Amino acid sequence: MTRTAFFISDGTGITAESLGRSLLAQFENVDIRMVTKPYVDSVDKARQLAEVIEATAVRDGATPIIIDTIVDEQIRDVIRDAAGFKIDIFSTFLKPLEEELATHSSYSVGRTHAIGSDDVYMDRIHSVHFALDNDDGARTHQYDKADVILIGVSRCGKTPTSLYLALQFGIRAANYPLTEDDLDEDGILKLPKALAPHRHKLFGLTIDPRRLAAIRHERRPNSRYSSMDQCLQEISQAEGLYRQLHIPFIDTTRFSVEEISTRMIAERGLMRRFSPR
Amino acid sequence: MTRTAFFISDGTGITAESLGRSLLAQFENVDIRMVTKPYVDSVDKARQLAEVIEATAVRDGATPIIIDTIVDEQIRDVIRDAAGFKIDIFSTFLKPLEEELATHSSYSVGRTHAIGSDDVYMDRIHSVHFALDNDDGARTHQYDKADVILIGVSRCGKTPTSLYLALQFGIRAANYPLTEDDLDEDGILKLPKALAPHRHKLFGLTIDPRRLAAIRHERRPNSRYSSMDQCLQEISQAEGLYRQLHIPFIDTTRFSVEEISTRMIAERGLMRRFSPR
Repeated sequence: MTRTAFFISDGTGITAESLGRSLLAQFENVDIRMVTKPYVDSVDKARQLAEVIEATAVRDGATPIIIDTIVDEQIRDVIRDAAGFKIDIFSTFLKPLEEELATHSSYSVGRTHAIGSDDVYMDRIHSVHFALDNDDGARTHQYDKADVILIGVSRCGKTPTSLYLALQFGIRAANYPLTEDDLDEDGILKLPKALAPHRHKLFGLTIDPRRLAAIRHERRPNSRYSSMDQCLQEISQAEGLYRQLHIPFIDTTRFSVEEISTRMIAERGLMRRFSPR
Repeated sequence: MTRTAFFISDGTGITAESLGRSLLAQFENVDIRMVTKPYVDSVDKARQLAEVIEATAVRDGATPIIIDTIVDEQIRDVIRDAAGFKIDIFSTFLKPLEEELATHSSYSVGRTHAIGSDDVYMDRIHSVHFALDNDDGARTHQYDKADVILIGVSRCGKTPTSLYLALQFGIRAANYPLTEDDLDEDGILKLPKALAPHRHKLFGLTIDPRRLAAIRHERRPNSRYSSMDQCLQEISQAEGLYRQLHIPFIDTTRFSVEEISTRMIAERGLMRRFSPR
């Protein structure tokens, strides 16, 4: 039997979905189909959605789960009347918060994901372009302006992580590839010269060699670059460098971009320029 | 008087912070300092944090607000004993959910933000590289593989939006700049030839000309490119094109990247390859 869970919001739905997925992830044995319904910002849209929910209940033969962050009371009432098991985040928590803060809350529709200020927007644009301009070792002279410099072998996840840090937190992340150009005569990887003055900003990434080979194989099939031997060797050299110079590092095989980024922020004490919305 | 709100998690803290900010945004008149504490995944770390919370209460002269998504009961108990006003998301909602689903939940630490599967990781990497490879009109031959093609004048927000769609949803977003190269003899903007076969995939971005001028000014100060006249004219031509060809469009001045992306998904019926974690 499949149940359907609806994440409903008058805004982006990001909060309802994020909370809903966290809660439902605790029920591994239940087969749950998850549906996000953002921008339910009128009574009409809510009525249409209520009909969809009713039809889903009939089709599934099971009560749908409804998790919502609708602020507007009229719209919320329509959803509340639909046949479902409700987790109503705002009505559960806003009332006790109002008492604790001894004030009323504003019931403005879609407050949280509105653009905060021009500054946030500009910080975001700047950080994204900083990541792109300083991707893969380009323009090394901007490292004095970087908050963090990600290092690692080709295709270990540097670029997605840099961009996530920029978009979500306004952190200026450069990245620099570790390559054979920096092997010494004994075949030991040395810290690239461009990075030497910025050792305190470095953060290493590593990856399971099998996954690295698979990723590289899609880019250049059956090449030395994508061979298991080459991947094993590069990873071993990179991790050796991290350990020798006490550069903190993280394995992108085991962690998502969200985890890598938030762990990096915690470990390096990075300052966010803004917060995810 | 400033209050402090702590968003506490044994994982990334993204869910607790997202919910916390949504709730507290409803209290515009209260001055709240927000602090996110991720990876509180041991009793020791929880005890240290409890001390910080106590000290904060004394310094603020006000009870801190504690919003947490800690799954582990032992760790949660330590935080629960700290002096604060608690919003305990999991204990509030998991019990009724267990009853509704007639099953027990798994109390594994940090379930939700673990990497789901290799497929998710690969989809994310592919989508980010797709966005980069098809940024700013590059490699137009990949448009048949694009889920959506963002169009707009230089620096209106195409790149950050493409990257957000890739990172959060695995959506393959190309982007193409509208420039004077596509003006006809009467000075009217025409649809660039490369885009003609893909009209159903187009989504327009526009921006307030004053903000556009400010953004461009930082890139090329006192240039024609950044002049108010030029920005006004380009925006007017771009919006004219959208209206003439019925291309859906959105104003990046009024909406955050999150809103632009989720609205685009809703309006164009885009399929996510995975969900934000």
